[in-house]
Amino acid sequence: MHDDLIALIDRFSQIGSTMDGGVRRLTGSPEDGAARTLFAQLATERGASVITDAVGNMFATFPTAPDADTTVLCGSHLDSQPTGGRFDGTLGVLAALDAAAALLAEGTPLRHNITVVNWTNEEGARFQPSLTGSSVFTGKYTADFALGLRDRLGTSMGEALEAIGWLGEDSLGLTPVHNLELHVEQGGHLEESGVQIGAVTASWGVRKLTLSFVGAPSHTGPTAMPQRRDAMRAAALAITRFHDQMEAETARLHWSAAKIVAEPDSPNVVASRVTVYFEIRNPDQAVCTEVGDRFMQAITKDVAALGCAIDVATDEARPGTPLSAEGVGMTLEAASALGLSATPMLTITGHDALALAAVMPSTLVFVPSVGGLSHSPLELTHPQDLRNGGAMIQALLRRLTA
Amino acid sequence: MHDDLIALIDRFSQIGSTMDGGVRRLTGSPEDGAARTLFAQLATERGASVITDAVGNMFATFPTAPDADTTVLCGSHLDSQPTGGRFDGTLGVLAALDAAAALLAEGTPLRHNITVVNWTNEEGARFQPSLTGSSVFTGKYTADFALGLRDRLGTSMGEALEAIGWLGEDSLGLTPVHNLELHVEQGGHLEESGVQIGAVTASWGVRKLTLSFVGAPSHTGPTAMPQRRDAMRAAALAITRFHDQMEAETARLHWSAAKIVAEPDSPNVVASRVTVYFEIRNPDQAVCTEVGDRFMQAITKDVAALGCAIDVATDEARPGTPLSAEGVGMTLEAASALGLSATPMLTITGHDALALAAVMPSTLVFVPSVGGLSHSPLELTHPQDLRNGGAMIQALLRRLTA
Repeated sequence: MHDDLIALIDRFSQIGSTMDGGVRRLTGSPEDGAARTLFAQLATERGASVITDAVGNMFATFPTAPDADTTVLCGSHLDSQPTGGRFDGTLGVLAALDAAAALLAEGTPLRHNITVVNWTNEEGARFQPSLTGSSVFTGKYTADFALGLRDRLGTSMGEALEAIGWLGEDSLGLTPVHNLELHVEQGGHLEESGVQIGAVTASWGVRKLTLSFVGAPSHTGPTAMPQRRDAMRAAALAITRFHDQMEAETARLHWSAAKIVAEPDSPNVVASRVTVYFEIRNPDQAVCTEVGDRFMQAITKDVAALGCAIDVATDEARPGTPLSAEGVGMTLEAASALGLSATPMLTITGHDALALAAVMPSTLVFVPSVGGLSHSPLELTHPQDLRNGGAMIQALLRRLTA
Repeated sequence: MHDDLIALIDRFSQIGSTMDGGVRRLTGSPEDGAARTLFAQLATERGASVITDAVGNMFATFPTAPDADTTVLCGSHLDSQPTGGRFDGTLGVLAALDAAAALLAEGTPLRHNITVVNWTNEEGARFQPSLTGSSVFTGKYTADFALGLRDRLGTSMGEALEAIGWLGEDSLGLTPVHNLELHVEQGGHLEESGVQIGAVTASWGVRKLTLSFVGAPSHTGPTAMPQRRDAMRAAALAITRFHDQMEAETARLHWSAAKIVAEPDSPNVVASRVTVYFEIRNPDQAVCTEVGDRFMQAITKDVAALGCAIDVATDEARPGTPLSAEGVGMTLEAASALGLSATPMLTITGHDALALAAVMPSTLVFVPSVGGLSHSPLELTHPQDLRNGGAMIQALLRRLTA
């Protein structure tokens, strides 16, 4: 059976599609469930055996080496951000599905089987932290930890996956020898430089600093102004200072403060606790640490002057992770053989391939995204670039299983 | 039956009590339901007939004038902020209950009946706007409008009240001739000046300005920094500017920005829409308008420079409302007769008595609160001040029904 990759992506774009051309498929939502069901059905129809593990990771193994107990993992994720695009994650799963099915259909026994994977909760949009399923697979997190993560309404990831019927108890049972992932770049680098394929060598480092600004509740009306300890004012000042400082830093940084939780969050109660999620990214983790320390120092006095304190809720370093050097070489060769231009490059953001790099050789391949826009309904990768990515995955799977 | 007002308040403090000495009784919550049930039971035991109207307002009429079709309303509210104190609202309902029961027990027929009222959703903590029940009673809002208000999880006030069994269909059936409310001051004025009773002449004006800062979603990692339109950054800058400007204004202002709603509120998506609830208070509504206009002008350019726009979600003027001049005189006389010091004063915040002033003579009496702290578990009014308030309500009800 031969699939048109574009038509396959279009089918998944219908699941959780939003009015503005994007998708919204939060982990454990009915939309996530529908995408999982369709993926399992398509994989089974194409000759794969599909199993689900204790945190909902789905493994669709194509028996390209029926006598071998080894496999090449190839996949990405079907969950999305609340304002997700059509390609982030989905492209990697469907390109793998298409390529694995094509290789199986050829009928030539290979050295390894191919397992197409849908990793649970890569996005970390509903349940924090992100890269959850792949990090359980590598042993970084326990399944219990992951299943116990709670969304803002108090539902656990375990409850959510169970509710949609995608909590399994199988384990892969094959020894993975390599991991491969195709993803849209989500930055403007490939597009700007006119290069068709990115061979990712490593990731930027990131410091994720979640700070709670702590004041005291009081009435927004009669309470005398000098008496207030306004945590929202402290948080707003810190966010403003954060952006001003990062812009002034000499290092090349990416940074954000995107999520905020205010308590008690009533228009008539001065906020007593406001939590802000800050992120600082640079190729060098030491720079993230240094810049973050400077930020903390800079705001401490200002926040105290407002009668508030700072509580460090989490301070997580995710140092830059190297990917398989062999995989980078193989990617550049495969691109060349297909007549595609390619370049080694870094990834600024996290991917399942980075989690997997902790325990096996892992290869990450990028195709361009228009304007480098993602986590947005406007996210776009042109059809030819999607097809180039699909061809790359097929070529790389061929090499990895040869 | 004679009650000790302090013991009565203590009983209600147990309902929705928080670990830190406060109460949390959001409108339509099980705790609200329990407070309503106890109130109805106590009023019935003391000889009142209790009815509930279409938005959950409870009217407990003590037949002090069985042949008359007129009544004096006296009450406040049993709902609280999420971080509420024990006296805000509850004192007014229970002092009224105690005084009305005592007057009925005396057995002397009076000129009017006395209706003790628990107004629904005074606080506006779960359902916005505040003063909901009293504003439906006066015809400012329709019952349909009020029942359709939704909390942040999408539950309507009608559904919430029905779930706790406190949605009625009765109407008062008596003609109210006056409204009376006792409340804790929630400011430091009485305490600082050492005066025992406040006779409220009018309220401060307030401008409630709810602004949405509108940017665009994108990935917090790879998206190039100059390309971002970060609504959170715009909101934080506006909040910071707001406080700086208000502090620099020459007019005597109270102000706040206490509630914030960010979308999509994922740590990995640049915020596309952030809504902030601003309030500006001054005795003169014209000052609120002028200062708010200056604020809007000041931030418009800065927000545009960040690639964001401002959407005015609501812009509500609540001009200062005068209370009954006769009531103020009566309050000062009653205090004097009881040997209590008293002063005319303004209220900075809203109360049900202000909503009712639109349709009948309405009187609002304050007792001191320690440190002027409220909407806080630390809210405190000393027992002697509570008793003074109770004595004032009894004295005023006696005068109003004589």
